[in-house]
Amino acid sequence: MAIITQELNLSTQGHTEIIDITKNVEEVVKKSKISDGLVTVFVVGSTASITTIEYEPGLVKDLKDAFERLMPEKMEYAHNSAWGDFNGYAHIRAAFLGSNRSFPLKDKKMILGTWQQIILVDFDNRPRERRIIVQIIGE
Amino acid sequence: MAIITQELNLSTQGHTEIIDITKNVEEVVKKSKISDGLVTVFVVGSTASITTIEYEPGLVKDLKDAFERLMPEKMEYAHNSAWGDFNGYAHIRAAFLGSNRSFPLKDKKMILGTWQQIILVDFDNRPRERRIIVQIIGE
Amino acid sequence: MAIITQELNLSTQGHTEIIDITKNVEEVVKKSKISDGLVTVFVVGSTASITTIEYEPGLVKDLKDAFERLMPEKMEYAHNSAWGDFNGYAHIRAAFLGSNRSFPLKDKKMILGTWQQIILVDFDNRPRERRIIVQIIGE
Repeated sequence: MAIITQELNLSTQGHTEIIDITKNVEEVVKKSKISDGLVTVFVVGSTASITTIEYEPGLVKDLKDAFERLMPEKMEYAHNSAWGDFNGYAHIRAAFLGSNRSFPLKDKKMILGTWQQIILVDFDNRPRERRIIVQIIGE
Repeated sequence: MAIITQELNLSTQGHTEIIDITKNVEEVVKKSKISDGLVTVFVVGSTASITTIEYEPGLVKDLKDAFERLMPEKMEYAHNSAWGDFNGYAHIRAAFLGSNRSFPLKDKKMILGTWQQIILVDFDNRPRERRIIVQIIGE
Repeated sequence: MAIITQELNLSTQGHTEIIDITKNVEEVVKKSKISDGLVTVFVVGSTASITTIEYEPGLVKDLKDAFERLMPEKMEYAHNSAWGDFNGYAHIRAAFLGSNRSFPLKDKKMILGTWQQIILVDFDNRPRERRIIVQIIGE
């Protein structure tokens, strides 16, 4: 049994930017030489999340729209009033969605649906340098 | 330390159907002979999710109602316009809820509350054959 | 490779009380002597959740407000009508947020952002004694 912990670095634009990171994660998996196990993808920070979606422009727009409808960027947030920040919405969205997802690995491949891509969602209101941790436990 | 990766197959009706899969997962755990470790339950595909709830008819209805209120089936989705699909809502709900949950296993039992059942939620707008992966890492 | 499964016990007030449990989890990690691996934090029960947020009073208020806006405590829930309960909202919020999050551990430290705290959210409508399971798999 082995543990591999690798860091991916991505420059993002923020504002609920949605980036397909499936290939990046697959590359770490391939290099790890681990055949069976659990792959955990985790984003460092409190204004971004990891989840899955069918990565196509329509759904990318629909997901952004859903967040804007449910947790609007421009409403009043106590976080903004207290700190002179404007990214209260980003923290709330990230707390809902969570900072990690896990994927089963079998016979050297993550088990994913054909239309099930792993995405980073960067909610923050400015460009960021993001650290994504890919950890594989297996053999 | 061992890794067991098992697939469960379920026929679903879709339309935010909520199915209690606790017993199915427990059976895999029992057969695995693993006593202590981590159990990850993952659904393949981008229009279904795994989570937990007290599985009783009232809450099953309340959860469906909450999704319909927050991410309605019949509103406009760019996904639907672009692809002639009608399941944009299903993708968005699944991206929010996520495709996996993990459970601690100790002394041959998953640690769950009495009223905490593991559920599959199939959001899609048609019957599906679903693949659920149960992966156990432990000893 | 080792597995450590530890239980934390917390008295909560409920009503979407948000408690920073980062230090509690870090203590379990430290005592485990495990250097690299996966830390899973899981809350037992169907009316509480685990997630991450920047733990400051503004965001604690904002997160409570978001839940109250999206899944209000006082609306009609079939769960309440059927069982004479008043915590239908708590079950629905917990099903959305989920009962676990996982964190990568490297060189004896969980990889977390400076403003990324691990929180227990207790949605229930009364004080509870909560059991939180911290499980570490690693070496």
